[in-house]
Amino acid sequence: MRTKSFRSVVKNYKAVFFDAFGVLKNHKGLIPDIEKTFEYLERKGIHYYVLTNDSSRSPEELAKWYQTRGIRYITTDKILSSGMLAMEFFKTKVTNGNSVAYLGTSASAHYIESVGLNTIPVADIDLNNLDHIESFAFLDDEGFSWNDDLNKTINLLRKKNMTVVVANTDINYPVSRNDISVAIGGLADMVENIIGKNFIRFGKPDAQMFLLAYERALQDIQVKRNEILMVGDTLFTDIIGGNKFGLDTALVLSGNTLPDMAKIRIGSSGIIPTYICDSAVIE
Amino acid sequence: MRTKSFRSVVKNYKAVFFDAFGVLKNHKGLIPDIEKTFEYLERKGIHYYVLTNDSSRSPEELAKWYQTRGIRYITTDKILSSGMLAMEFFKTKVTNGNSVAYLGTSASAHYIESVGLNTIPVADIDLNNLDHIESFAFLDDEGFSWNDDLNKTINLLRKKNMTVVVANTDINYPVSRNDISVAIGGLADMVENIIGKNFIRFGKPDAQMFLLAYERALQDIQVKRNEILMVGDTLFTDIIGGNKFGLDTALVLSGNTLPDMAKIRIGSSGIIPTYICDSAVIE
Amino acid sequence: MRTKSFRSVVKNYKAVFFDAFGVLKNHKGLIPDIEKTFEYLERKGIHYYVLTNDSSRSPEELAKWYQTRGIRYITTDKILSSGMLAMEFFKTKVTNGNSVAYLGTSASAHYIESVGLNTIPVADIDLNNLDHIESFAFLDDEGFSWNDDLNKTINLLRKKNMTVVVANTDINYPVSRNDISVAIGGLADMVENIIGKNFIRFGKPDAQMFLLAYERALQDIQVKRNEILMVGDTLFTDIIGGNKFGLDTALVLSGNTLPDMAKIRIGSSGIIPTYICDSAVIE
Amino acid sequence: MRTKSFRSVVKNYKAVFFDAFGVLKNHKGLIPDIEKTFEYLERKGIHYYVLTNDSSRSPEELAKWYQTRGIRYITTDKILSSGMLAMEFFKTKVTNGNSVAYLGTSASAHYIESVGLNTIPVADIDLNNLDHIESFAFLDDEGFSWNDDLNKTINLLRKKNMTVVVANTDINYPVSRNDISVAIGGLADMVENIIGKNFIRFGKPDAQMFLLAYERALQDIQVKRNEILMVGDTLFTDIIGGNKFGLDTALVLSGNTLPDMAKIRIGSSGIIPTYICDSAVIE
Repeated sequence: MRTKSFRSVVKNYKAVFFDAFGVLKNHKGLIPDIEKTFEYLERKGIHYYVLTNDSSRSPEELAKWYQTRGIRYITTDKILSSGMLAMEFFKTKVTNGNSVAYLGTSASAHYIESVGLNTIPVADIDLNNLDHIESFAFLDDEGFSWNDDLNKTINLLRKKNMTVVVANTDINYPVSRNDISVAIGGLADMVENIIGKNFIRFGKPDAQMFLLAYERALQDIQVKRNEILMVGDTLFTDIIGGNKFGLDTALVLSGNTLPDMAKIRIGSSGIIPTYICDSAVIE
Repeated sequence: MRTKSFRSVVKNYKAVFFDAFGVLKNHKGLIPDIEKTFEYLERKGIHYYVLTNDSSRSPEELAKWYQTRGIRYITTDKILSSGMLAMEFFKTKVTNGNSVAYLGTSASAHYIESVGLNTIPVADIDLNNLDHIESFAFLDDEGFSWNDDLNKTINLLRKKNMTVVVANTDINYPVSRNDISVAIGGLADMVENIIGKNFIRFGKPDAQMFLLAYERALQDIQVKRNEILMVGDTLFTDIIGGNKFGLDTALVLSGNTLPDMAKIRIGSSGIIPTYICDSAVIE
Repeated sequence: MRTKSFRSVVKNYKAVFFDAFGVLKNHKGLIPDIEKTFEYLERKGIHYYVLTNDSSRSPEELAKWYQTRGIRYITTDKILSSGMLAMEFFKTKVTNGNSVAYLGTSASAHYIESVGLNTIPVADIDLNNLDHIESFAFLDDEGFSWNDDLNKTINLLRKKNMTVVVANTDINYPVSRNDISVAIGGLADMVENIIGKNFIRFGKPDAQMFLLAYERALQDIQVKRNEILMVGDTLFTDIIGGNKFGLDTALVLSGNTLPDMAKIRIGSSGIIPTYICDSAVIE
Repeated sequence: MRTKSFRSVVKNYKAVFFDAFGVLKNHKGLIPDIEKTFEYLERKGIHYYVLTNDSSRSPEELAKWYQTRGIRYITTDKILSSGMLAMEFFKTKVTNGNSVAYLGTSASAHYIESVGLNTIPVADIDLNNLDHIESFAFLDDEGFSWNDDLNKTINLLRKKNMTVVVANTDINYPVSRNDISVAIGGLADMVENIIGKNFIRFGKPDAQMFLLAYERALQDIQVKRNEILMVGDTLFTDIIGGNKFGLDTALVLSGNTLPDMAKIRIGSSGIIPTYICDSAVIE
């Protein structure tokens, strides 16, 4: 399968949306030389944004990760996360004074609290007093006992009908070269299946994630959807979501989709990127 | 279960999004007295739009249906259909001169052709010459032989990898008081399951449908999402989609969700409307 | 991937269960030289049976197909079909005088009628008089109008609650070297999904199919399950079903699972045959 | 909805298959007066067996539970569990000297070890030395850390392709009047979904469970399938499984299916029991 150089592809666009994991970083840290890509984009005046299915940290913290590793270009305003959509949802929907119950680390809840909402971890809930619990959030796979708190979540949601938000649609994520971990989206799928209710999910490939980034881009620049390139390593989130939203798409082979499987995966999935590139690095 | 009068609910919003079937019309025609609702909205200066999972006809034809039945308020510019999203998709994505293969009536294809695209019904395709077929659309459950053309579609999509659009997510629709028919979305589900590929779907509850209507509303009025009321009869499309997009929602009991089942359905689905009203009629 | 000769594998078993399509025959007719396999089995005194997900014809007709092509060994008593399980079910469950409604050819219904049951094709049903319709059978994808009769089936099953049997679990079948057709199991999946009810399915990989064959084998020979070899071309029906029932299994590469994909498919599915053979032919 | 007395129903059968939870016992212990049913069956010479989706304990331990509560009739030979099917599977399929990795309590593993197999809990596995791990069993939801061992299981099954058995198909079970817990089948579903492989499941409604009981019954008595009554509280396991296997079925309203929901559930599921009884108690 013939790939194109990322430089020859990206130069034709006004803006680029980057997936994070597998494109800009991997389990070891930054993808080597990826900073050169941002230097190129800056030189050419091409705008860029990072779209990530991550609700474990705030955009500030996500940006800081890049900056402490030397990519000063990725500032908070360049980050669009599924956690932001969840936060925005609760801000509009939760009655003042009521609480959002959650599964996740306290760091993941801090972000929701930063707009004045109350949160309570499932572990601290008294199942006999649910008066002020109005909504539920699946935020992070860490920070709680799966044995205890998944069962408690199920019984909480059976006792009181409330809107449930899954702030990260991914079902797993890589933790090392070969190993993966269940993501909070995978745990949420299990709970949803067991109680038979319908959760609200935020994150790629859903259009709302792309809309969030598009609205951010429109604050910086006048741009049509087909003047934007979505760059990702995963057909089932980045590429199909970008295609559907009307963006052009570039599949990179530096992450989830390995070079020797790309052709088979595209053929068997029917998800066709506009371009295929070895990586997003511009040397 | 206590319901609110639609008047007392709608008066607090700047704009209303209406689902069509079960809210404005049913198998017999217009919901009796629904025109009074539009007179009220006009008087109060509340903007209104109709969001419909319908790709069988153009917005012009959909609007005409209301006008010939005496609701002159519902003009073409008030109609937002999943077919419009499909059309927009093909306009951006299909190379000039190439064709969109489709299942549906020729009327459903005319709408796509109206922006200069070529279309070809599956029945007319030569499976040995697919050079100019670039994309595929599921448009309408009528206008073709299911026995012949569903099998031909499957083999077409196995022979040539192309992007497939399902322009209506509904799996069935009512044809009389008691009877339903398989919708094109239901046929598309079967084909997708058999060939194991991933189709792109347009229609409620997907955010893109709500975005289309919201962008239209913004052309008429300055309005935030939580100043808009989504009115629908179906929890799984209208209400969950509206909730997720940040709208307030009103479930009406004049269609899919019957009065004696509303409470059970809300409880078992976990999809909670902001309000419940008997109907959208304002007397 | 190393394959074993079928002869070296089969000689260690007291009985063999063969899948039909992709093992003994394909779209062109008999697999060349497959008759030699039966000559070998006869010589060695190894018993053999054919297990097929086929409800379109009676065991007599299925056997006749082989015999008219020169394999006199495959007699009616060697054939075990999913249609036999359906017939057995109706014989026990349907009240004398009542009818089984069906989708399929009249030939597929004749087999059910042969034990004294009444059948009625969906096309002939009067939806206003369902008194004597007691059960429903999905028998064959041919013999009816999909447009008319699938919709009629849906409304029939909404009007009257009855037990529904899908007499062939396959969702598609090959009709030529490259082309496939939707099987009756694929149509049944769509109907089940639209009406939200639970159908009863007969056919591999379900244990009841293997039990039927095992009980037949026990009439001929004293044999334990692990003394039987299941031979099939499809991991998801023949091999997983055989494994689960306690049989040893041989995947052959003459049908559904192509030689260059076998290793990938076994790895990605987690369905592990005891042996892999190029084909079931013994030369 | 009219129910029949259990006595009037059961007296017409040669044998009865009982589901355990919701029929013979609940979260508080034995269903009050259920011992009278067994006294009746003994008097009438009707044989009885208990079919349970339980792989957490051996049949001996399951029987002991009843005996210590005063029902001396339920002896080990009356118990048929999904754990027995799993144990039988491993006995046939696992090479001498190799190990079955498992999730569950050590008590659940002891049963598998009782036939001479080696087992190893996931927590004790060295992922860099999997040479002797040949198969995997989901046995019980207790006895391990979900956070650590579910992730470790996923990576184990990605590193080495092996047959995976889920020894209990239930996704949840009741722990008190109102509360439920995720069952090992629910955890297995999540793992299967994340790694995309196909597990082998044992338990109702699968035919193999009914076959196990039927074969046991045939050791005691000459009986045809339609001379056996399956008694259960759950449509989706006991009733549909019994129906499909050719048994008559009685739904009891003492467990999962509450009296006021029985009619709705039967109508919406399409799973129709032969009889409905308030409970299995014969007074």
